[in-house]
Amino acid sequence: MTELSMVEIFVSEAFGTFLLILLGVGVVAAVSLPTSKAKDAGWIVVTWGWGLAVFAGVYGAYATGAHLNPAVTIGLTVAGSDLAEGVPATAGNIAVYVVAQFVGAILGAVAVWLTYKKQFDQDADPAAKLGIFATGPAVRSYGWNVVTEAIATFVLVGWILASGQTPSQLGPLAVALVIVAIGLSLGGPTGYAINPARDLGPRIAHAFLPIPGKGGSDWAYSWVPVVGPIVGGVAAGLIVPNLAGLF
Amino acid sequence: MTELSMVEIFVSEAFGTFLLILLGVGVVAAVSLPTSKAKDAGWIVVTWGWGLAVFAGVYGAYATGAHLNPAVTIGLTVAGSDLAEGVPATAGNIAVYVVAQFVGAILGAVAVWLTYKKQFDQDADPAAKLGIFATGPAVRSYGWNVVTEAIATFVLVGWILASGQTPSQLGPLAVALVIVAIGLSLGGPTGYAINPARDLGPRIAHAFLPIPGKGGSDWAYSWVPVVGPIVGGVAAGLIVPNLAGLF
Amino acid sequence: MTELSMVEIFVSEAFGTFLLILLGVGVVAAVSLPTSKAKDAGWIVVTWGWGLAVFAGVYGAYATGAHLNPAVTIGLTVAGSDLAEGVPATAGNIAVYVVAQFVGAILGAVAVWLTYKKQFDQDADPAAKLGIFATGPAVRSYGWNVVTEAIATFVLVGWILASGQTPSQLGPLAVALVIVAIGLSLGGPTGYAINPARDLGPRIAHAFLPIPGKGGSDWAYSWVPVVGPIVGGVAAGLIVPNLAGLF
Amino acid sequence: MTELSMVEIFVSEAFGTFLLILLGVGVVAAVSLPTSKAKDAGWIVVTWGWGLAVFAGVYGAYATGAHLNPAVTIGLTVAGSDLAEGVPATAGNIAVYVVAQFVGAILGAVAVWLTYKKQFDQDADPAAKLGIFATGPAVRSYGWNVVTEAIATFVLVGWILASGQTPSQLGPLAVALVIVAIGLSLGGPTGYAINPARDLGPRIAHAFLPIPGKGGSDWAYSWVPVVGPIVGGVAAGLIVPNLAGLF
Repeated sequence: MTELSMVEIFVSEAFGTFLLILLGVGVVAAVSLPTSKAKDAGWIVVTWGWGLAVFAGVYGAYATGAHLNPAVTIGLTVAGSDLAEGVPATAGNIAVYVVAQFVGAILGAVAVWLTYKKQFDQDADPAAKLGIFATGPAVRSYGWNVVTEAIATFVLVGWILASGQTPSQLGPLAVALVIVAIGLSLGGPTGYAINPARDLGPRIAHAFLPIPGKGGSDWAYSWVPVVGPIVGGVAAGLIVPNLAGLF
Repeated sequence: MTELSMVEIFVSEAFGTFLLILLGVGVVAAVSLPTSKAKDAGWIVVTWGWGLAVFAGVYGAYATGAHLNPAVTIGLTVAGSDLAEGVPATAGNIAVYVVAQFVGAILGAVAVWLTYKKQFDQDADPAAKLGIFATGPAVRSYGWNVVTEAIATFVLVGWILASGQTPSQLGPLAVALVIVAIGLSLGGPTGYAINPARDLGPRIAHAFLPIPGKGGSDWAYSWVPVVGPIVGGVAAGLIVPNLAGLF
Repeated sequence: MTELSMVEIFVSEAFGTFLLILLGVGVVAAVSLPTSKAKDAGWIVVTWGWGLAVFAGVYGAYATGAHLNPAVTIGLTVAGSDLAEGVPATAGNIAVYVVAQFVGAILGAVAVWLTYKKQFDQDADPAAKLGIFATGPAVRSYGWNVVTEAIATFVLVGWILASGQTPSQLGPLAVALVIVAIGLSLGGPTGYAINPARDLGPRIAHAFLPIPGKGGSDWAYSWVPVVGPIVGGVAAGLIVPNLAGLF
Repeated sequence: MTELSMVEIFVSEAFGTFLLILLGVGVVAAVSLPTSKAKDAGWIVVTWGWGLAVFAGVYGAYATGAHLNPAVTIGLTVAGSDLAEGVPATAGNIAVYVVAQFVGAILGAVAVWLTYKKQFDQDADPAAKLGIFATGPAVRSYGWNVVTEAIATFVLVGWILASGQTPSQLGPLAVALVIVAIGLSLGGPTGYAINPARDLGPRIAHAFLPIPGKGGSDWAYSWVPVVGPIVGGVAAGLIVPNLAGLF
């Protein structure tokens, strides 16, 4: 396989993350906004929506290993892996991955706004409108919120590092199911950002989109879903490759 | 592989679309009609019902690539692909695909009516009875409704065009999961027709079937779930093959 | 492959159908009986419960093609197929399949009763207790109830006949998902028996098990979920192999 | 394949069981604890949460066949199988499996407590807090509770022994779906421990963790989800390999 160019890397990660956020942020809009046919459809809808958003997104970014998530990019780097086949973990490549993930995430959030334009235009709690774009804690406690995000992201990145050994032909479904699992089980306290681009990208879109009655973007919390996932991804990158040489 | 005859193409697409609509329109009947054991079973039932309807339908139309949807047929044509192995995108073949999809959809809707005959005979809101056959907007705004349908169909056709590169052995389950994803995430504003045959075919059946208290067929809206999906399919056919040569 | 003996056929189909009914009737007990932790868990639980019951049951009867259902055995015979690799559709083999399916179904229903013994001992509506073992119509109308069961079983047997052409590595998951689809979409009017052994076997168990306050076994309806599925299976066996030679 | 060392076995089973319990106990915390975003999300969330917890955990313990459960280890031993490729069923290996499973389970429960720390700190029914860690019966009746656990575990271990013959490329998804099936269908009376380590490990964690208002650990019941699963696993190990030589 020939090495991918930076343009190819950028387009791949941006397109995949665009699909991820269009479908992921989309499902929160679906269950949150007034008049949506999926209003109040519940946690099973949210968690499968995000899981299948990853499923679809992975196809979009298949050429680059479909990180879609800076915590994955960083975790693989710490673990000493290439970023994908034909993509060594150079500083330049890492930067292209992360920038593309943010660009894709912001564009995906804009597309959700277009999809749900007439719903966003209606009256709703400003916190609900923000909650479509960005996560927030059930109980605000920055330290423990970081712990929650770090543990949940450890599971994601640790699984990615461990799963290379295990034969199945599930392709992108496997990681999608792990995302569903993390959402069902570990999403209760903070809404499982587990991905800095997933949270900060759409939060930026929330800040600049002309949404009526949208309220503030809660910048005070915005560092938690960046730092927590990075801590969890780094921890997985340090620990999993050293588990008795199994992975 | 030898080229398929027009009769084979017709039977394949019609049988697959028949299964799709029997199961897809069926799930809306299941959650909508009085006395149905699945009454009010919620969005997770509707979205999995439609996703697995596609799953079953793909098997019925496997020989023709299982478009089941004029927006897919048109999107592949715009992208420059064959319609299926051994089926070039000639005007004649395209016409057979689309006619078969409509015939299958109408027959599938009739089969739903037979399955739920005693439920259709009971009193219910005319809008609920129409809503089983055809989609309708949560907020009527033709322009934005077209946008929603176009974006959702872009995801479907774009994924189909992108997914050829990605190995998995999921077969028809992969596209079924993408349909579930689109329903969960992008179905809130318009009920995700994303397929002209899925909407207009059963709407025609609604118009001619002898359903007590059925009300009108909302022809004023009927062009939206035709035009929106075609716009989205064409956009995907133009854009995805030009994403840095990745697909 | 050597031909299977009648003992092997019997054990295989009986064990698979035992697992199917233990898990399938079990899920109805789970959502119906007082004090069950899954009480009123809804249609999504019932439909996935039955789908995954088929999934597990197929593994138990893999050697015999996992019919688990006389309508499948009869449909394959009408279509001119062998019953499984190494199992020709002789009268003797057909009889062993069907007897084993009923024996397995009755034993599975007894195992559900043992599993939920303390729940069955509590006061509950006799109709709810019967509804765990046997299906019943939402609107009693024997002719239309037969139509519903025949259409739903046509989808099952038709899919089985069509699916042989379509590559995937899903194994028993594929038919399990079709069962989920049928339940979600076509189960509303009659509770989708789609299998004479699934309905009549547990109904017999209901009649002889010492369940407090159980009421009658509704023998007046008992022929419907036998005749309807056989009609649907025969129709599929006659029609699908003649669809332009596609299957 | 070279034989695995005891250290490798220990790390593998402990890591896999850690993931299983982090995600499995996690989902019960998610639906039970005040302020959790998944509060009261229902049985479908609990059962898929546990099923996908097994899915993720199997990847962590792939090298050792991913028992994650002493009832599986014992059942395979009774059936005369190796514990995994390159791991004969010696007394020493069995002991390492079981100890690792308990260590992993306890660590997983501690990680759930850290993830949901701010939720555990809030007022809640002590029974609900215990119910996150350990199972309890809907109707307390030790004998029948053992029967329920034994039947449910018979399905699990029997399926594992039977499934080796059946081709699919689902990998760890297959056993995960069986866990979902058992939960949906047989979990109503006792909450389906079906695994001594899953119940007793987190119960021990409940006893020592500093959870405000946690109440007692219900040691009177604690033997049931140990003995029941062992009985079921041994029964499967004795019966399934003798079913007409099919497995």
